[in-house]
Amino acid sequence: MNNFTFHNPVKVHFGKGKVEKISKEVKDYKKILLVYGTSSIKDFGIYNQVIELLEGKEVYELSGIRPNAKVDKVYEGIELCKENDIDFVLAVGGGSVIDSAKAIALAAKTNHDFWDYFFLKGNKPSELIDLGTVLTVSCNGSELDATCVITNPKTKQKRYYNDPTLFPKFSVIDPTYSFTVPKTQIISQSIDVISHILEEYFSKPTYTTTTDYLSEALLKSVIKNVEISLADSKNYQARANLSWAGSLAVSGLISLGKEGDWTSHKIEDALSAHFDIPHGLGLSAIHPNYLKYIYKDHIEKFKHFALEVFQVNPVAKSDEEIALEGIERLQDFFEELGAPIRLRDLKVDEESLEKISKDIELNQASYSKLESYDIFQILKSSY
Amino acid sequence: MNNFTFHNPVKVHFGKGKVEKISKEVKDYKKILLVYGTSSIKDFGIYNQVIELLEGKEVYELSGIRPNAKVDKVYEGIELCKENDIDFVLAVGGGSVIDSAKAIALAAKTNHDFWDYFFLKGNKPSELIDLGTVLTVSCNGSELDATCVITNPKTKQKRYYNDPTLFPKFSVIDPTYSFTVPKTQIISQSIDVISHILEEYFSKPTYTTTTDYLSEALLKSVIKNVEISLADSKNYQARANLSWAGSLAVSGLISLGKEGDWTSHKIEDALSAHFDIPHGLGLSAIHPNYLKYIYKDHIEKFKHFALEVFQVNPVAKSDEEIALEGIERLQDFFEELGAPIRLRDLKVDEESLEKISKDIELNQASYSKLESYDIFQILKSSY
Repeated sequence: MNNFTFHNPVKVHFGKGKVEKISKEVKDYKKILLVYGTSSIKDFGIYNQVIELLEGKEVYELSGIRPNAKVDKVYEGIELCKENDIDFVLAVGGGSVIDSAKAIALAAKTNHDFWDYFFLKGNKPSELIDLGTVLTVSCNGSELDATCVITNPKTKQKRYYNDPTLFPKFSVIDPTYSFTVPKTQIISQSIDVISHILEEYFSKPTYTTTTDYLSEALLKSVIKNVEISLADSKNYQARANLSWAGSLAVSGLISLGKEGDWTSHKIEDALSAHFDIPHGLGLSAIHPNYLKYIYKDHIEKFKHFALEVFQVNPVAKSDEEIALEGIERLQDFFEELGAPIRLRDLKVDEESLEKISKDIELNQASYSKLESYDIFQILKSSY
Repeated sequence: MNNFTFHNPVKVHFGKGKVEKISKEVKDYKKILLVYGTSSIKDFGIYNQVIELLEGKEVYELSGIRPNAKVDKVYEGIELCKENDIDFVLAVGGGSVIDSAKAIALAAKTNHDFWDYFFLKGNKPSELIDLGTVLTVSCNGSELDATCVITNPKTKQKRYYNDPTLFPKFSVIDPTYSFTVPKTQIISQSIDVISHILEEYFSKPTYTTTTDYLSEALLKSVIKNVEISLADSKNYQARANLSWAGSLAVSGLISLGKEGDWTSHKIEDALSAHFDIPHGLGLSAIHPNYLKYIYKDHIEKFKHFALEVFQVNPVAKSDEEIALEGIERLQDFFEELGAPIRLRDLKVDEESLEKISKDIELNQASYSKLESYDIFQILKSSY
């Protein structure tokens, strides 16, 4: 267990109808910039509800945020803040909406170009606008972290900025808002959550029982509740438990004392840069095959995973067989959800795998020591 | 899963040597009141280390805080703050030191009697002094919560005050500081942590998988690591994982979406008011017997507990047998630690049990519906 610092000051209002809390949360602010994406929040009544709750405030709007938050909308939001002397930014949406709102809040009190902050480490403004979020679609955890990821389509740059000043003051998580999310999105999102947890769980150092047991707890809750949520899209309890497990998985809790691996994410990011693959589905094809490639270096840990997370029956099996069966059960689970477990099913071109394997910057702290050759083998076995 | 609000803004610096962080944490403050207990922090070198790290600050001291934080030391601390225009209170110690420091920070900027705040709900000062903690002995979670408990020996009142303004700005948790804590204290403390978790775990409502699985994770980590810590008092990894599990158990995380039961704590509090019993040891005698009294109302949950937390072998056993075996394993575990599992071993007078059972205010939201008669039966079965 390594030393760590943990700090997550976001106030979470969780549950059906909890959006009502925003009135009290914004009571000391006067001019609010409401940031949202498409018209779906209007279709589902969330927009009207929020507008009612902001009664008495001067509300300005920035809509039309698209997936993969882009620089142009951030510039537009910063301009709106400056022109109207905005003192609070309220994001209502998923990851790209919250990330855009964070970038706006970051730079709206300075005359610097916001994009510069994304390039120099330690470069930060002296004053930010306060920020709150209402999560409508489970995302990359932006509602509970201090990071935003913004894309500049012209320069083809996707950069992230992280600083404690970016934590939202509050986040509202109402699981009923996700009842209408398409199944494929729930599947992709849940696999991403599982993959996030595994990147920390299967990483150095060895003795991290408290954090690892918490990871197993979240894995089991996601696995149980995503199945129920897919079968019964309006099952509130399953959705609520899935949603809370997903948020906690990215709150920082499960990385405490760990080094993190992130090899599967690095491979998937490189693939996504070449092919148009939903992140979670790429991970579905990569992550179990990556684990199959390295598990023999860490039999004890993989055996523990198999027994705890998938209740593999150990009778008459060697430790190595138990360990492998755990990974196979994970892969089977992704397949049962309806996710592709082979890159060939994602229209990835087999010829490009060797080149992609060479593009990947290896993580020196990864769980097993790997070379480009190994990455190529992992990609081939995932094809 | 009930709706909830979760907010824990304490910045935790965890690990060996992390006390060095206090220099940076107090850089914007000038006059610091250092609050501590007995001379033990001097014996173990912590005092000198802290004084060195506060170089350049005007440091005032309030020492001699005893177990069960008393009003007199709080008044003394408030006076010191006012006389010297203190702008930061730093607690170095366990629960009573941190609780005293909180009460001082609470009232040092007002002319109200601090004790009044403990009697009127919603009664709070407009300004507090900022507060940080360096934990030396695992305690009741005061390093991670917004509560303080103070005792007035003259009026025999023990009251608690809770308000979000009381969260420490930071808490340093260095597991090596607890290497010298006597075994009996580690045992009592660990049973208290387990009991805290069980009070939430075995409570309404039914469908709370995410929170319950996290509770199981913490229970398993405490059980594993307390045994190693008792056998090998300088095993850093075991102590660190035990310590972090203990802090998380009181951080609020495992009560999210739950109603909480707290019947065992109510019974133990009533016993402690009559007999001089260490809290954790009283719980060791009460909690398993309480669970044995109610488990038939909740067979599924108790079966899950038995299988997950104690890996009870289910072969050829009924659900009821599996459920009961889980509780027996818990009781055996307390006994193996060396804790008394009978009230008779705690010098409790059997004649007084009926009277005590009538003194206990029943919790209407408890997991099973109970009457005074039931409490008497639980006390008798614990004798």
